[in-house]
Amino acid sequence: MKSVNGNSVCLGVVIGKIQFYRKNAHEISKVILEDIEGEKNRYLAARDKAIQELKELYENTKTSLGEDAEIFEMHGMLLEDEDYNDEVLNIIDREHTNAEYAVFQAGEHFYDIFSNIEDEYMKNRAIDMRHISEKVILSLQGLHQVTQLKEPRILAADDLQPSETVQLDRNMLLAFVTKKGSSNSHTAILARTMNIPALVNVDIDKGWDGKLAIVDANTGCMIIEPDEKTIEKYQRIIDEQTKQDDMLQELKGKESVTQNGHKVKLYANIGNLTDLNYVIENDAEGVGLFRSEFIYLNSNDYPTEEQSFEIYKKAAEALGQKRLIIRTLDIGADKKVDYFNLDEEENPALGYRAIRICLKRPEIFKTQLRAILRASIYGNISIMYPMITSVEEITSIKTIVNEVRAELDAEKIPSKKDIEQGIMIETPAAAIISDVLAKEVDFFSIGTNDLSQYTLAIDRMNDKLEDFFDSHHEAILRLIELTVKNAHNNGIWVGICGELGSDTSLTQKFMDMGIDELSVSPSKVLKVRQIIRSCK
Amino acid sequence: MKSVNGNSVCLGVVIGKIQFYRKNAHEISKVILEDIEGEKNRYLAARDKAIQELKELYENTKTSLGEDAEIFEMHGMLLEDEDYNDEVLNIIDREHTNAEYAVFQAGEHFYDIFSNIEDEYMKNRAIDMRHISEKVILSLQGLHQVTQLKEPRILAADDLQPSETVQLDRNMLLAFVTKKGSSNSHTAILARTMNIPALVNVDIDKGWDGKLAIVDANTGCMIIEPDEKTIEKYQRIIDEQTKQDDMLQELKGKESVTQNGHKVKLYANIGNLTDLNYVIENDAEGVGLFRSEFIYLNSNDYPTEEQSFEIYKKAAEALGQKRLIIRTLDIGADKKVDYFNLDEEENPALGYRAIRICLKRPEIFKTQLRAILRASIYGNISIMYPMITSVEEITSIKTIVNEVRAELDAEKIPSKKDIEQGIMIETPAAAIISDVLAKEVDFFSIGTNDLSQYTLAIDRMNDKLEDFFDSHHEAILRLIELTVKNAHNNGIWVGICGELGSDTSLTQKFMDMGIDELSVSPSKVLKVRQIIRSCK
Repeated sequence: MKSVNGNSVCLGVVIGKIQFYRKNAHEISKVILEDIEGEKNRYLAARDKAIQELKELYENTKTSLGEDAEIFEMHGMLLEDEDYNDEVLNIIDREHTNAEYAVFQAGEHFYDIFSNIEDEYMKNRAIDMRHISEKVILSLQGLHQVTQLKEPRILAADDLQPSETVQLDRNMLLAFVTKKGSSNSHTAILARTMNIPALVNVDIDKGWDGKLAIVDANTGCMIIEPDEKTIEKYQRIIDEQTKQDDMLQELKGKESVTQNGHKVKLYANIGNLTDLNYVIENDAEGVGLFRSEFIYLNSNDYPTEEQSFEIYKKAAEALGQKRLIIRTLDIGADKKVDYFNLDEEENPALGYRAIRICLKRPEIFKTQLRAILRASIYGNISIMYPMITSVEEITSIKTIVNEVRAELDAEKIPSKKDIEQGIMIETPAAAIISDVLAKEVDFFSIGTNDLSQYTLAIDRMNDKLEDFFDSHHEAILRLIELTVKNAHNNGIWVGICGELGSDTSLTQKFMDMGIDELSVSPSKVLKVRQIIRSCK
Repeated sequence: MKSVNGNSVCLGVVIGKIQFYRKNAHEISKVILEDIEGEKNRYLAARDKAIQELKELYENTKTSLGEDAEIFEMHGMLLEDEDYNDEVLNIIDREHTNAEYAVFQAGEHFYDIFSNIEDEYMKNRAIDMRHISEKVILSLQGLHQVTQLKEPRILAADDLQPSETVQLDRNMLLAFVTKKGSSNSHTAILARTMNIPALVNVDIDKGWDGKLAIVDANTGCMIIEPDEKTIEKYQRIIDEQTKQDDMLQELKGKESVTQNGHKVKLYANIGNLTDLNYVIENDAEGVGLFRSEFIYLNSNDYPTEEQSFEIYKKAAEALGQKRLIIRTLDIGADKKVDYFNLDEEENPALGYRAIRICLKRPEIFKTQLRAILRASIYGNISIMYPMITSVEEITSIKTIVNEVRAELDAEKIPSKKDIEQGIMIETPAAAIISDVLAKEVDFFSIGTNDLSQYTLAIDRMNDKLEDFFDSHHEAILRLIELTVKNAHNNGIWVGICGELGSDTSLTQKFMDMGIDELSVSPSKVLKVRQIIRSCK
């Protein structure tokens, strides 16, 4: 029995066997062969098998995963590409190598090409090229990828890309532990969305592969080859947890209301249309943060008004009378899109991003606003503007919204006349002058992630600063309290859509402040409802 | 007569002839020659002449410029370097080119080598390699560098590096106008230290060279070939300005006190020992910000305790009983030093910098603290810690200071027992919890530059965001007011050492708040004193 520590990024306790996420492709040796034609045929057969497997994977998951399943279809298409195919065959021809090595080289070749393009969309394609090569290599070796785990396993890996996390089959995934990663990384946020117990900064050891282990993400430790007594102890914790989970299920359809009768709007944050399923499944009362930038990130040119409109309309219709708060474009900072032609910046988090881009390039902003206003008649849509620091910015936004509305009216295109408009409170400036800003808008939503990093002057993605970062810092709590007070003094409602919203150690404090709304990961909705119902 | 606009970075009005800062070296053509030996001799003679000129320049300026003059001595030494010399001679040999081209190529060669080193000190050496090549080329062409202007001139340039600004002979420099630059850049800060009227973002035209012009940095415009009437008008403004300047001189030795009798400590910010002359010359009442990082930036390895001690001792002795507030190391963000081996960061301004480095690497911090404590018996030294966000950080600092003090006591090395210790208030967090922090320290100094960029979430060095950056933003003023109130409620004094301290449109507001200290550029001391004396 051996115990190691890690940083918990998503709570939970599990017992199960460890499986290493083998990036076999990185351990391929070059072998010189004589039977070139035989090797080419081995490659072609493995490729066909991989394509077939991807097709099946897509068919089998398209209902459950929705648009997230499209990655399998896309990978199949990439494998069918002739350039890729030619590259592999050429390497075998030229270097007389084994098929595994040729496929690995071809993958790295295209990886390099794509990853040198300064664009989130194309960079993702780079990783895809590596993924499809790994797929073919596994097929050559008669192995399966981890996403096709047949048994529930604790997954151990050096690191996981967000795209890898998404592709993991959550039904077979008990927990994951990685050597790298910070508790504020995108991967960690994804783990919380998927509600998979996870530890990062774990000193993993390949010798653990196949061994039984306990991951206790509640206390941040992992026990390898636990003895009987320890297993029994943890089994009791798990049983208790299961009981708790069952109790949570019973909260579906119940109100999110405190013992004192304070009713909270309990909403969910989502980043694509598939997430709408989790919103409904977890009985969220609306969407408090619809991250519209995914439409831009998943595209390789400016999305048209029509494309955006269709997405907003679908979301509005799916939610019916439930509120759908669409946050306008928050591109920039760590979210770069090639076709926006954004300059490199010394400090992107303090840079040209979000509303600043929209106000400097109103043509992009207007297209988005037209699409949202057109969709507004299909449901209960509100608009929310990110990164506000001043009244002047709100005045400029209003001018643009009025122009767009006038255009739609002139074209006799229907839109909701009194659409609710709010702002994110995510800069210290906005929180501090929230008394003034409250007179200009219909609601506030406090973005605690950015608010914290600016207040503490600490990049939350920077591992090196975790010792200095205190997510419960008194200054952050005071800014939240001030914002709530100023909102209420001016008769508007105020919510939290950052990570702190689902930090249940703060829920009572937020209730005391009188917060009106909490918008959290879909997987956190029922837990937060339970805590709200226990609050005074 | 033609008028163009620009952004003023240092006020003042002047009339004079325009001279373009010719970076001739960038316009060198390659000529193929037969007389290789003749060309080599031309180069060697020009090099000797340049070395001789640099020696004279050093001798002539070392009294007036102090250590700033050392750059000329260093350039002379670089020109005497055999590697440089061999490179030039080899190019002439190999390519049969004119000496100008060979010198230019050699300069670029070494520029590339040095500028690829991720270190502020070595990067400066890169620019030096270009500068010495320019010097030799000018010598080959029988021209002089702009720093040797014989007549007062308005200098026009595409851009000026801080090192170039420093080297300009301020006696011959009426004003400078540049095409690039932002009002918050280091060059702009230097212009204010040197008190030279300056405009940036001016659409300069090479056709203006030699023409008469008016630079009106008070209103942000420039008039080329003004007519008689305009000249007369501006001459009256200049006369009035001169009268004002004379009046300022009469404020030397007077108190910095408002009409109501509120006495302000009027200090100066300095970034090297030479600045001490300006402190004395402008009758500053002390040094409110001694940027100790210059000791680290001007070195290519960790400065020893002895080296640092000597510098602190010199400064303390020069100031006598006047207060000398030494800010501990503020490396990181835009100030990188190679030997610190700092990682690349996504957002250095929100990164591993200042006190965060000192707390993670206490051996560096201790060396500095020992040097400061040892120097403390030679004058009136206070210590100030940058980038504080929490009480925990102050507790850690106190532990380290106590360890250092115990070591010194054990070694029977004298140090001031009750040395005053304060903190910078430059993160929103620190301002917001200043009531709590005030109980832990002897004074506050508000760093408005960083405080503004974090509060507004805008990198102040990012030109693109100037439209969104409001240095008088209500949130910033509220944070300052809150900090003053919290300091006074806890019986400690509070000052401002950021750029806002010398913004005379805010002086009355600061007096109303009850600010105790203002620390400004030496050149601003008398102007600020005048305004304080006119305040209620």
